[in-house]
Amino acid sequence: MDFTIDAATQDWIDRTRAFLGEEIHPAEADFARECGELGWHWTASPTLRRLQAEARSRGLWNLFLPGEHGAGLTNLQYAHLAELSGRAIELAPPAMNCAAPDTGNMEVLAQFGSPEQQEQWLEPLLAGEIRSGFAMTEPAVASSDATNIEMTMRREGDEIVIDGRKWWTTGAMNPDCQIFIVMGKTDPGAERHRQQSMVLVPRDTPGLTVQRGLTVFGYDDHDHGGHGELVFDGVRVPASNVIGSEGMGFAIAQARLGPGRIHHCMRSIGLAERAVELMCERASERVAFGRPLAEQGVIRDWIAESRVRIEQLRLLTLKTAWLMDTVGNKGAHTEIQAIKIATPRTVEWILDKAMQVHGGGGVSSDTPLARMFAGIRTLRWADGPDEVHKNALAKAELKRHAARSSGQA
Amino acid sequence: MDFTIDAATQDWIDRTRAFLGEEIHPAEADFARECGELGWHWTASPTLRRLQAEARSRGLWNLFLPGEHGAGLTNLQYAHLAELSGRAIELAPPAMNCAAPDTGNMEVLAQFGSPEQQEQWLEPLLAGEIRSGFAMTEPAVASSDATNIEMTMRREGDEIVIDGRKWWTTGAMNPDCQIFIVMGKTDPGAERHRQQSMVLVPRDTPGLTVQRGLTVFGYDDHDHGGHGELVFDGVRVPASNVIGSEGMGFAIAQARLGPGRIHHCMRSIGLAERAVELMCERASERVAFGRPLAEQGVIRDWIAESRVRIEQLRLLTLKTAWLMDTVGNKGAHTEIQAIKIATPRTVEWILDKAMQVHGGGGVSSDTPLARMFAGIRTLRWADGPDEVHKNALAKAELKRHAARSSGQA
Amino acid sequence: MDFTIDAATQDWIDRTRAFLGEEIHPAEADFARECGELGWHWTASPTLRRLQAEARSRGLWNLFLPGEHGAGLTNLQYAHLAELSGRAIELAPPAMNCAAPDTGNMEVLAQFGSPEQQEQWLEPLLAGEIRSGFAMTEPAVASSDATNIEMTMRREGDEIVIDGRKWWTTGAMNPDCQIFIVMGKTDPGAERHRQQSMVLVPRDTPGLTVQRGLTVFGYDDHDHGGHGELVFDGVRVPASNVIGSEGMGFAIAQARLGPGRIHHCMRSIGLAERAVELMCERASERVAFGRPLAEQGVIRDWIAESRVRIEQLRLLTLKTAWLMDTVGNKGAHTEIQAIKIATPRTVEWILDKAMQVHGGGGVSSDTPLARMFAGIRTLRWADGPDEVHKNALAKAELKRHAARSSGQA
Amino acid sequence: MDFTIDAATQDWIDRTRAFLGEEIHPAEADFARECGELGWHWTASPTLRRLQAEARSRGLWNLFLPGEHGAGLTNLQYAHLAELSGRAIELAPPAMNCAAPDTGNMEVLAQFGSPEQQEQWLEPLLAGEIRSGFAMTEPAVASSDATNIEMTMRREGDEIVIDGRKWWTTGAMNPDCQIFIVMGKTDPGAERHRQQSMVLVPRDTPGLTVQRGLTVFGYDDHDHGGHGELVFDGVRVPASNVIGSEGMGFAIAQARLGPGRIHHCMRSIGLAERAVELMCERASERVAFGRPLAEQGVIRDWIAESRVRIEQLRLLTLKTAWLMDTVGNKGAHTEIQAIKIATPRTVEWILDKAMQVHGGGGVSSDTPLARMFAGIRTLRWADGPDEVHKNALAKAELKRHAARSSGQA
Repeated sequence: MDFTIDAATQDWIDRTRAFLGEEIHPAEADFARECGELGWHWTASPTLRRLQAEARSRGLWNLFLPGEHGAGLTNLQYAHLAELSGRAIELAPPAMNCAAPDTGNMEVLAQFGSPEQQEQWLEPLLAGEIRSGFAMTEPAVASSDATNIEMTMRREGDEIVIDGRKWWTTGAMNPDCQIFIVMGKTDPGAERHRQQSMVLVPRDTPGLTVQRGLTVFGYDDHDHGGHGELVFDGVRVPASNVIGSEGMGFAIAQARLGPGRIHHCMRSIGLAERAVELMCERASERVAFGRPLAEQGVIRDWIAESRVRIEQLRLLTLKTAWLMDTVGNKGAHTEIQAIKIATPRTVEWILDKAMQVHGGGGVSSDTPLARMFAGIRTLRWADGPDEVHKNALAKAELKRHAARSSGQA
Repeated sequence: MDFTIDAATQDWIDRTRAFLGEEIHPAEADFARECGELGWHWTASPTLRRLQAEARSRGLWNLFLPGEHGAGLTNLQYAHLAELSGRAIELAPPAMNCAAPDTGNMEVLAQFGSPEQQEQWLEPLLAGEIRSGFAMTEPAVASSDATNIEMTMRREGDEIVIDGRKWWTTGAMNPDCQIFIVMGKTDPGAERHRQQSMVLVPRDTPGLTVQRGLTVFGYDDHDHGGHGELVFDGVRVPASNVIGSEGMGFAIAQARLGPGRIHHCMRSIGLAERAVELMCERASERVAFGRPLAEQGVIRDWIAESRVRIEQLRLLTLKTAWLMDTVGNKGAHTEIQAIKIATPRTVEWILDKAMQVHGGGGVSSDTPLARMFAGIRTLRWADGPDEVHKNALAKAELKRHAARSSGQA
Repeated sequence: MDFTIDAATQDWIDRTRAFLGEEIHPAEADFARECGELGWHWTASPTLRRLQAEARSRGLWNLFLPGEHGAGLTNLQYAHLAELSGRAIELAPPAMNCAAPDTGNMEVLAQFGSPEQQEQWLEPLLAGEIRSGFAMTEPAVASSDATNIEMTMRREGDEIVIDGRKWWTTGAMNPDCQIFIVMGKTDPGAERHRQQSMVLVPRDTPGLTVQRGLTVFGYDDHDHGGHGELVFDGVRVPASNVIGSEGMGFAIAQARLGPGRIHHCMRSIGLAERAVELMCERASERVAFGRPLAEQGVIRDWIAESRVRIEQLRLLTLKTAWLMDTVGNKGAHTEIQAIKIATPRTVEWILDKAMQVHGGGGVSSDTPLARMFAGIRTLRWADGPDEVHKNALAKAELKRHAARSSGQA
Repeated sequence: MDFTIDAATQDWIDRTRAFLGEEIHPAEADFARECGELGWHWTASPTLRRLQAEARSRGLWNLFLPGEHGAGLTNLQYAHLAELSGRAIELAPPAMNCAAPDTGNMEVLAQFGSPEQQEQWLEPLLAGEIRSGFAMTEPAVASSDATNIEMTMRREGDEIVIDGRKWWTTGAMNPDCQIFIVMGKTDPGAERHRQQSMVLVPRDTPGLTVQRGLTVFGYDDHDHGGHGELVFDGVRVPASNVIGSEGMGFAIAQARLGPGRIHHCMRSIGLAERAVELMCERASERVAFGRPLAEQGVIRDWIAESRVRIEQLRLLTLKTAWLMDTVGNKGAHTEIQAIKIATPRTVEWILDKAMQVHGGGGVSSDTPLARMFAGIRTLRWADGPDEVHKNALAKAELKRHAARSSGQA
């Protein structure tokens, strides 16, 4: 296990940190004002547009994407950059074209898309000209078990006819979100993991309605395109819109989730570091009962705990990235689950304490903490609730144990 | 300690329960639609107005208020009714004119107000014609220590001149909020707990600006009049607007907090019961991996824990109410602190689990859970953060211990 | 719900407290020395013998037992006395003939024993002349499900032939433990809950071997007769030794557990109060980094938490006792489970903090804390592990919820 | 950060694992019997003697010690071996001459001892011929603040006269423990951290009494020489017995603690892995309510949690070892504190769950779990309670934050 930061990686880190210091952080207040008071809605705000251009000119663009289409970084290299971007979670990832769900969608198109699909949708996504949505979760079923999916995708001649309902399609309220990757069942009679397909559905296809935006706590997340509930009523797309081939839906979903999860974790750690800084700052300034909060035992306990927990979490995330690089996503399965479980709750705990140190300011818009909390809280069920992952992880542990025991016998 | 429910109390309970079942619960969807889609803002919505009339006609009005001005219930009697109202936390308390902060303000006016103050402000508040705000917390100082307050209240002839800034004045965004009870320092040179006064400031007084509404996890709480930040710039009111007399501010604040805290706790327990019901309902309906969630061990653990924790919490709240009735608010000081500490975290834990059982629906507006969570979370710092109360409670315990030990010697 | 302490109950409380203050506490050091340095083993030490006589002369004897055989107290009355006895957990309960497992065994004999059984075994137990064991748990099966029991009890003419193995038979190492109540299967073919019987087996019956004493975290608990593992190899007793009738074993076990559990909880709360006192005392005396521990935030947090948690726990225990008195043990089933779950973990938490405040002294024999911890820890699985009780409690909650929901439909 | 295991390290790992598999694990039952039934006391049992010879012949001896005197391993290399030895915590470390407190004492002598001291005491310790004790903690003061120490060391001519009391001197009950390293105050008037000295006191020095052995929960830890309380009454040793020079006591204590703490953590992780194995094994075998525990949700949750927590903990320990190797113990100060805080509580949590899965067997001597728990519990205060370390860690974090903030200004 080698987490050494070589010169090339250090250069990426330095440039990303410089971009954050010189461009992102100074622009945060403007961006907040645009999204807040000015009521900027759904599409990219002027500040975000400007920062995207700047990031591109600095070469800090599509860093998440391995291979020829992207920056070609390893997961371990990108881990450090993603963490930095998480320090300005609202602004840095989209500015660098490294925000979910576009990242996962671009990965899918890069890995499984046909040349025509890549030309039509991947190119403009890589260029930041359009945005995309991922429509997998359904309101009616426990989507953590992907085989539950109820959306039907019926073949009629050269077309696929799609009927069903999706929700939590992040970004869908943004009119720039031109393309949806949609998961449904093309063959309900096939073997459990071969029933599903992924299909590209352009936003303006007749029969597709973006019905409403969902809120997360009280946030509509309009700066990120919100979270849409989509109705598909006899939606027809050419059969060539199927990604890979029919029946590959489940496999593609699995392939997509690994990197998606680790990116979330990396960014969340950066977010946690920001929260600790805000906590330290407030604790140092605020005086209660004659002493700064920073000198009071319980507050110190929280700060120490935050540090102890973040350190452990980061190392496990780095190990996971290193495993993905060296033995592949499949070989890193247990570790990906482990950080998927460990990250949201750890960061949530830190945010809770950071909020508490801020009193009323902590839950309001005067600090980014409450919004961070809302976002992190969703990660405890998005891409599968913790309980499902823990169950699977324990099963794997028991299996390993049984194998070891019988080996010893 | 006698928590027996006599016939009269049972009648109150039955009538309140009937009101909830017949009027409040059936109206919740309409109320949500008015506040949500229809964008009803700040003032009472038509549904709320209708329910207020209905509650009044049923005699379920001002139940919180002991003595001649209110329903004359004991704290122990009201505990049961407040809990029921907490099951519909957005709608039932205001419908019954039992919502914070009006409850505390009416208590202050009933207990300390002059006949003129009572006629001018208490009467219309009791009638539900106007609403009121309580302006104590300041952004610049740790207000958990009331002696920190920086707002100046300077005597000039027959007038008081007020300068300073307040925030978290709940209800302030509602134009019907006609009167503010404001805490400031009239005599910075006096003994620590005699420096403060409480003064009535009508909304339309020149120099008073309701500057902005604060959000709680993205919610503006407009159905409750929001949470205002108020600027007082040379605000002048007649000296007769002082409540009680100059220097009584701290004492009034203390007197106000006891009942206010227990009301919050009572309602929160009802809210927790509602959350458990939603959790049971969802767990019974939702199938994952071939079995209803209700049959899965971890979910059962959450349900059992919720029951075990609520039972303990309710009993401590009832004991506190009984103590307030029998030995007075001062004699119940430790218990009031104990429920102030125990309630928010317990209910927050239950809400977290109820949300988790609901997946995406849990954090969105499709269930009331996320908004409940946001509201309960604020109780961990409102009226003083948990940490301050724990510190004081421990100090009292240590003092009792020392007294007992020396008594034994 | 009425927890009022009437004059008679107050008199019992006063007398018990006086006994503790005048006799038990002053004798604790002697008792510890006898059990420790002097290596007193298994039987009652001279100090215990002396205190038993004293308790008897003060009428503080068999207080746990309702009805004619005992003091005739209600559960609610006894709750206060049991709590007091828990403050000297090693010495007070046996001194007052109110220690497990004799209490449960005497209840069984008083409620289900034949006149002959009562004369032979209940009388000397009530007189404190002998002690008794309860042999239910088996090493080979999950005994939390009593239907798992494997011990065979075969009828041969007028005799019962018993084969099998039991463990955690508390008191069994004490040669004064003259009689065991043993649970086994008399009819494996009967309905699940009618297969078991309870049989009286005198210690000296051929074929019965007390094989070894089990330790609890290194303690052999010799002052309480230890915890025996018993082998039954063709043990024969007359059929008249069956308690009640054949097939009643499960029902008797259930009847026995209710009071047994609440007694444990009551005593544990007294034990927790003692731990808080030790924590306060140490925190007040010990100086670190220039200030007494009692002035340090984290320590205060522990003390406050202890108080908040104990208060809630005691009230739930009192409610349970009151329910048992008013609606019977069956009607109090959920509450009995709730306190069975809530008590050990709460008290364990407090003990852990009390130990931590004492540093090395906390885990050694210089304080009673580590031994208390070991004892309380066993309550998390004795009489069924927490997880089994939580599962059942949740099931009941879900059932109640379903009934309520269908009632509303 | 590079945790790569090179071929040499892998060879050490393989050989240590082979030794455990071929020698240690097969001997555990014998060792337990010698220490238990046979009542072997204080000195090395025959089994331990045999294994020591075997370890030595395999070159698995003094692995902990860097430099010429030991195996010359880095901390990172040793981390893997120490973890393995922790899987048989009672037997493997002493068999390999890698058990505390001898390890720390040998380090002190190797680093600070004079050639004469090394010849007289280090040589036989390295050879496993004698054992040693470390006498720092005092019963009367909070020893977490080393400047509190009260033991006096008065210079009289060529001698040092020592008076005072020490406790928790692990190993002291073993008559083979021939030498104590004792910390006391040689110059109470000097600067706070220059008052203390470390002095070698042979066991047979007049005036030194090993007064009693302390228990940990109910264990006397006789297989490890127990934990002694020592009285020094006018004990005289030559001034040449001072280690380093007078006034260096605090500095030596600090130097000693770093490696000592990380060794404890490494071994504790191995111990945790063993506990997880026992938990998996029991869960797979034990059937309750018709299904193996391993298929029940709550048990799976514990297993998953254990894995997630151990993974994070091990990585932080490896990082700490790597830092100690690359930037020195001082540069790794924060990380050493972090693992000192994180390890005991994490492992304690796992042990608690492993015990619970075992029911009564978990707390008895039928599994090693309860004794492991007792040992791990002591680490939450030994070498300074968690609270002291958290306080210091937070202070450092706040200082770093302040430096960064002012750098940004």
